[in-house]
Amino acid sequence: MSDGVTLPGVGERTSAAGPRNGRLVLVPNTLDFGVGNGNGNGDGNGDGDAQADIRDLLPLGVIERAVVLEHWLVENARSARAFIRRCAVAAGREVVLQALDIREMPRARKGSPGGGAPSPAQRDEALAALKAGHDLGLLSEAGLPGVADPGRDWVAEAHALGHAVQVLPGASSITLAVAASGLQGQSFAFVGYLPVEATERRARIQALEQASRRLQQTQVLIETPYRNPALAEALVATLAPNTQLSVSVALAAPGGYTVTRRVQDWRRSTFTWPDRLPAVFCLMAASPAAAG
Amino acid sequence: MSDGVTLPGVGERTSAAGPRNGRLVLVPNTLDFGVGNGNGNGDGNGDGDAQADIRDLLPLGVIERAVVLEHWLVENARSARAFIRRCAVAAGREVVLQALDIREMPRARKGSPGGGAPSPAQRDEALAALKAGHDLGLLSEAGLPGVADPGRDWVAEAHALGHAVQVLPGASSITLAVAASGLQGQSFAFVGYLPVEATERRARIQALEQASRRLQQTQVLIETPYRNPALAEALVATLAPNTQLSVSVALAAPGGYTVTRRVQDWRRSTFTWPDRLPAVFCLMAASPAAAG
Repeated sequence: MSDGVTLPGVGERTSAAGPRNGRLVLVPNTLDFGVGNGNGNGDGNGDGDAQADIRDLLPLGVIERAVVLEHWLVENARSARAFIRRCAVAAGREVVLQALDIREMPRARKGSPGGGAPSPAQRDEALAALKAGHDLGLLSEAGLPGVADPGRDWVAEAHALGHAVQVLPGASSITLAVAASGLQGQSFAFVGYLPVEATERRARIQALEQASRRLQQTQVLIETPYRNPALAEALVATLAPNTQLSVSVALAAPGGYTVTRRVQDWRRSTFTWPDRLPAVFCLMAASPAAAG
Repeated sequence: MSDGVTLPGVGERTSAAGPRNGRLVLVPNTLDFGVGNGNGNGDGNGDGDAQADIRDLLPLGVIERAVVLEHWLVENARSARAFIRRCAVAAGREVVLQALDIREMPRARKGSPGGGAPSPAQRDEALAALKAGHDLGLLSEAGLPGVADPGRDWVAEAHALGHAVQVLPGASSITLAVAASGLQGQSFAFVGYLPVEATERRARIQALEQASRRLQQTQVLIETPYRNPALAEALVATLAPNTQLSVSVALAAPGGYTVTRRVQDWRRSTFTWPDRLPAVFCLMAASPAAAG
């Protein structure tokens, strides 16, 4: 994996000015967070769970880049250390975790002035390594930082400060779910979480179905694992009979799977909804012509 | 990488019926198609281009699963053979390409009755291996099949026929671009290609910007590489000054990069737009409150 930031045909990048030293490196995590592998405590933290060899889940180029990063900004320091340890084992390289500079992304402070945004001092500290000219790894708990996960603020800040941003190739459960659904993949929207309150949730599901029908666009949603059964039941109860609903459970973990059916078929089937396992839901309304 | 399709808590999947034999296996491709690596012809077909070791780009679990598949349904047979050859080299395994059953996905037939959809005979033949109980690999030219790429029809057909669909973990340039943009990653829409005709394209850009502002949703678009400069110029000319526009060029290839700026800053900058290189564009309008 090259570190180059110049490309033929990109004038600005070959100019003398160039980007500042210190790159923000977006490191994809595996998708097995919260899944476990059968004989551990299933928290995905690597603290005793039997986990797949990380080389089965991430490209070697990512693993080898991760083990040479000395500065990290992460969602959770404990699981980041477990991740780096997994990478070091896979790369056959010794990494002294205690010597690494691993900081957690400043969290939104509930009830604080400024709506919970990090303070200027917190922002300054989070990117200190970058500003000092070091490469800084950005890591969230699963998949890509900033995609349905924290991290976006720091990417935006790095761009604003003129640092190069490099993303390493890794999977996101969102695009995996779209691919596996067999639903429209030329147009799809990830809309995140729905409201928890039943009436609001129903209204939101109806709005998403209307958008899907009007734009012929797959709508992709997620929920906190323990709320998956309630979301699934609300989707099956609310959506039109000929809307297609796809559920992808624990994708990219051993045993992960995808089921796609029309809502009328979900209503007729017996299915134990995934509980306490990560899932991605995709829905696609029939075209207006076929909607009758 | 396990082949299991059962999960605790998923009643139906552990029932006696279970899915039919023959799984459709979605195999992610690398993202270096059309990029080349400096000293080849740059067509990404592996026919003389110096290419990165595929282990740097795809997880070993994907590579080792790919080399044992004997039946394939692919976008392009020639580059699929090059892909399988790359995987075999990386896995240290001999694969006799001539012995593999590699078929191209039936193409839309222009001007044919039925709007160019594959004929029933073509459909039958494409999934013949699956119906005979074999696992069938599905592969497109870059990234995930069915996501901004052909493949969706066959995934839908496999679901309809009751076969299990398994997606292997791989990157999509869409989610990489969202992550690297620093724009909203809790809500984003991939909308594919814009109209080529200037007036229609302008109207579509305005509609996307309005949707982005109303939904506070990042809009993600792509273009045929040689049209990238024209699309970029139309975006910069049409969007509001405080809308943010991000361009990701040749992501996950050596030298790939992302630049994010407000439109007013793009207007003030000199930038050679990527020509004949794959790019992903992300735009995010300022919130209505800030839009002034």
